[in-house]
Amino acid sequence: MSTPTYDELASHWTRLHHFAHLQSIAGWDQAANMPPKGNEARAAAMAEMAALMHRMRTEPTLPDRLQRAEQEPLSDFQRANLREMRRVWRAANALPESLVQRRHLATSRCEHAWRTQRPANDWAGFLENFRPLLALAREEAALLAAQSGLSKYDALMDRFEPGMRSAQVDRVFGEVRQWLPGLIQRVTEKQAQEPVIRPQGPFPVAAQRALCEQVMRRLGFDFEAGRLDVSTHPFCGGVPEDVRMTTRYKEDDALPALMGVIHETGHGRYEQNLPREWLGLPIANARSMGLHESQSLSLEMQLGSHPGFAQQLSPLLMKHLGAQAAWEPENLHKLLTRVKPGFIRVDADEVTYPCHVILRYEIERPLIEGEIECEDIPALWNAKMQELLGISTEGNYTNGCMQDVHWPEGLIGYFPCYTLGAMYAAQWFATMRKEIPGLDAGIARGELQPVFDWLLAKVWSQGSRWETPELVQRASGEVLNPAHFQAHLRARYL
Amino acid sequence: MSTPTYDELASHWTRLHHFAHLQSIAGWDQAANMPPKGNEARAAAMAEMAALMHRMRTEPTLPDRLQRAEQEPLSDFQRANLREMRRVWRAANALPESLVQRRHLATSRCEHAWRTQRPANDWAGFLENFRPLLALAREEAALLAAQSGLSKYDALMDRFEPGMRSAQVDRVFGEVRQWLPGLIQRVTEKQAQEPVIRPQGPFPVAAQRALCEQVMRRLGFDFEAGRLDVSTHPFCGGVPEDVRMTTRYKEDDALPALMGVIHETGHGRYEQNLPREWLGLPIANARSMGLHESQSLSLEMQLGSHPGFAQQLSPLLMKHLGAQAAWEPENLHKLLTRVKPGFIRVDADEVTYPCHVILRYEIERPLIEGEIECEDIPALWNAKMQELLGISTEGNYTNGCMQDVHWPEGLIGYFPCYTLGAMYAAQWFATMRKEIPGLDAGIARGELQPVFDWLLAKVWSQGSRWETPELVQRASGEVLNPAHFQAHLRARYL
Repeated sequence: MSTPTYDELASHWTRLHHFAHLQSIAGWDQAANMPPKGNEARAAAMAEMAALMHRMRTEPTLPDRLQRAEQEPLSDFQRANLREMRRVWRAANALPESLVQRRHLATSRCEHAWRTQRPANDWAGFLENFRPLLALAREEAALLAAQSGLSKYDALMDRFEPGMRSAQVDRVFGEVRQWLPGLIQRVTEKQAQEPVIRPQGPFPVAAQRALCEQVMRRLGFDFEAGRLDVSTHPFCGGVPEDVRMTTRYKEDDALPALMGVIHETGHGRYEQNLPREWLGLPIANARSMGLHESQSLSLEMQLGSHPGFAQQLSPLLMKHLGAQAAWEPENLHKLLTRVKPGFIRVDADEVTYPCHVILRYEIERPLIEGEIECEDIPALWNAKMQELLGISTEGNYTNGCMQDVHWPEGLIGYFPCYTLGAMYAAQWFATMRKEIPGLDAGIARGELQPVFDWLLAKVWSQGSRWETPELVQRASGEVLNPAHFQAHLRARYL
Repeated sequence: MSTPTYDELASHWTRLHHFAHLQSIAGWDQAANMPPKGNEARAAAMAEMAALMHRMRTEPTLPDRLQRAEQEPLSDFQRANLREMRRVWRAANALPESLVQRRHLATSRCEHAWRTQRPANDWAGFLENFRPLLALAREEAALLAAQSGLSKYDALMDRFEPGMRSAQVDRVFGEVRQWLPGLIQRVTEKQAQEPVIRPQGPFPVAAQRALCEQVMRRLGFDFEAGRLDVSTHPFCGGVPEDVRMTTRYKEDDALPALMGVIHETGHGRYEQNLPREWLGLPIANARSMGLHESQSLSLEMQLGSHPGFAQQLSPLLMKHLGAQAAWEPENLHKLLTRVKPGFIRVDADEVTYPCHVILRYEIERPLIEGEIECEDIPALWNAKMQELLGISTEGNYTNGCMQDVHWPEGLIGYFPCYTLGAMYAAQWFATMRKEIPGLDAGIARGELQPVFDWLLAKVWSQGSRWETPELVQRASGEVLNPAHFQAHLRARYL
């Protein structure tokens, strides 16, 4: 059937896809390779590309063409593409140019100053920049909300997790709040009775790198379509056809790099296995930040910290880093599942991590809705840290409410994705356990293919065909259900 | 004074410059990092970028704007920019879109098949693809010639060496032809009497890399604004603010990587020292391929193979690769100046190299002008190899007329730049010897700054402000004069 306008739009998006490729590779290069004096020219080039892509996403003819295409006799597949095109168009067009510029200036200023204000514990100085940034974030949220009919916070969150609403997050996080602090208490008491042998370094970087690469291969990463390099802040970048993962190595401790690499391999496999035949079309993209995190956590937490998987990791650690008692499977599993409440989100274990996220969500949502002001943050942070993790952050901004780069960067509505991802991952494995007989015994024997086949069928190959809630329903037969996450933690830690 | 149209054009070129940045970094990445499965997506992204840049260079309003800008009250500096803008516009607009596409197809096909035809010595097969490619190259040359009023070959060569004409090349190469074969004869006879100690490997790659990096630092390469990596075909890419050099290492021989790196460092320093305050404008670019080669050969041949410089290199080789008699300064200098006629241009020494270039020039010029046909190439090649180097290539296409990628890629008019570069380099050093007292003794003591200061003032900082002949005149007080090259070879080799 004839779909000329849809076809035109598809070509337009394919051009965007090609430019996004160069943008992504240059972005990876910036983090992994670029020498310092290259920064200014690169920033100018990247800004030029961002401006070009923004012009393409806000092309004045697009609303009319989107509308005309919607009248064409489209397949479901084409309709899904059109829905995603409209999402991209809507996000790009929501904000007037002047607001985009003011926002860019405010976040640059706030983030830049934060780098020195955080170590200086300078909350008052931070507020100077964060107050105007919050005003702009609220303005942005109001515009997005007016356009979408969502609440302000939901309008922000929808950019990271399409279809997710705070009503559902409230319900889910509210439940977790009920049982998680008690669980942490029980786990830490139990673990206090269990001695664990600490590994003895140093561990040469070359050996760690070889170990990481072998584990990546074991986890199915395709080195013909990707690389592992080094950067200060590990990430998974590049493009689906050429995934660029990074990590960082510490000579005195090998497990952070290894588990970081396993985490990024989850992101990497998702990207490497996005539907190749749709590449260039918007539904070929990974669905959302939460689903992306569900893949990294499926590999890092569900699989990588699985007691059976420690039997697979153990001989590899012995081989690359030398034999020692700490690498015996049982001890290794203990090392990988140690629970300890602490100040810092990024250092948190699987069990305490959701507390850090719930706390941030419970602050940033009312902050955007105008129910609280930024002056209220420290007291709320301290109260919630006490309540959830039994830790005081009074007067400690450095390791309290100033620890993350997200807010200084104006990234609000993103935090829930971390814990939603952990929950999706638990839900995937709960579903697999029903569908794949002997899953856990298989993992201990290194039979990982059934896991990858499941993820491929249910998540990777689906791209952005469905909004998140529908993908979750299709994959697991039910909506997001935090009971699976609870059951996972109980089974593993109690 | 008001120059609104010129200013608009300058902005347009700055945007082009930003896109060229991303294109260049992605191109380097393709050679140095990209895994094989990334190729197709990268090629599509690069083609999209090339198309965008082509559209910008052929924007329909440009001729009118260039003309209007020329009426504005411009400084000499602005006029030079306008001249270069017009050059870019002319080159991009010379060819109708359909010819560009046919040419692209023909070169892709010819180059791809050449990769297997060359090792198979399959001249007949090669001709099948090269014949139509040559027809298109002639068509292209005719269009460029009609537009510029130059001869066909000159119109092609002008893209690589602006202002250089075959009348001058004929004169210069004609002179060299008179004395070079005799000189080669005398040098090889002389060297046959001089024993040389061969270095004993293996030389670990990490040690070679450390050596290369130290030599690069010694030669003033700024690692805050560039990198050294590995690729199959060494090159110098990236952007002036972030120069990406590559090399390749062989464990059994350390000198090829080292001398290759010294060569690329010449390109790299040129790029790193282009006039920073003009960056983004067309005259901030390196002038030409010949001048670029004059910089790589200034460092590799004039400096790197200088007898005094061997005293500087010797302790570094001993330090990184272990002490051995081969690295003693006198022997090292012998190793670096060994002359031996051979089949392959890229393996040729400084003395025999021009024979390879003259031969190619004497074939490709009449080929484009329609004076000979591609069927004539092998016989001409063989005759000229006999004449210039005393070597027969009869029936040997692999190491004869099929050895270079240039013709299969449709690159015609480029070869002269190699030897013009060697001649410019000799002319620079002849000028320096007059202007800098004790230059050679200084080089032996490692005092290289006067050399770099001269190159900076006369070449690097001049960008594309002048066409090549004027730059040569300004730098050395005379036009290109092959007598300096001859004097250099005589002084060093006899």
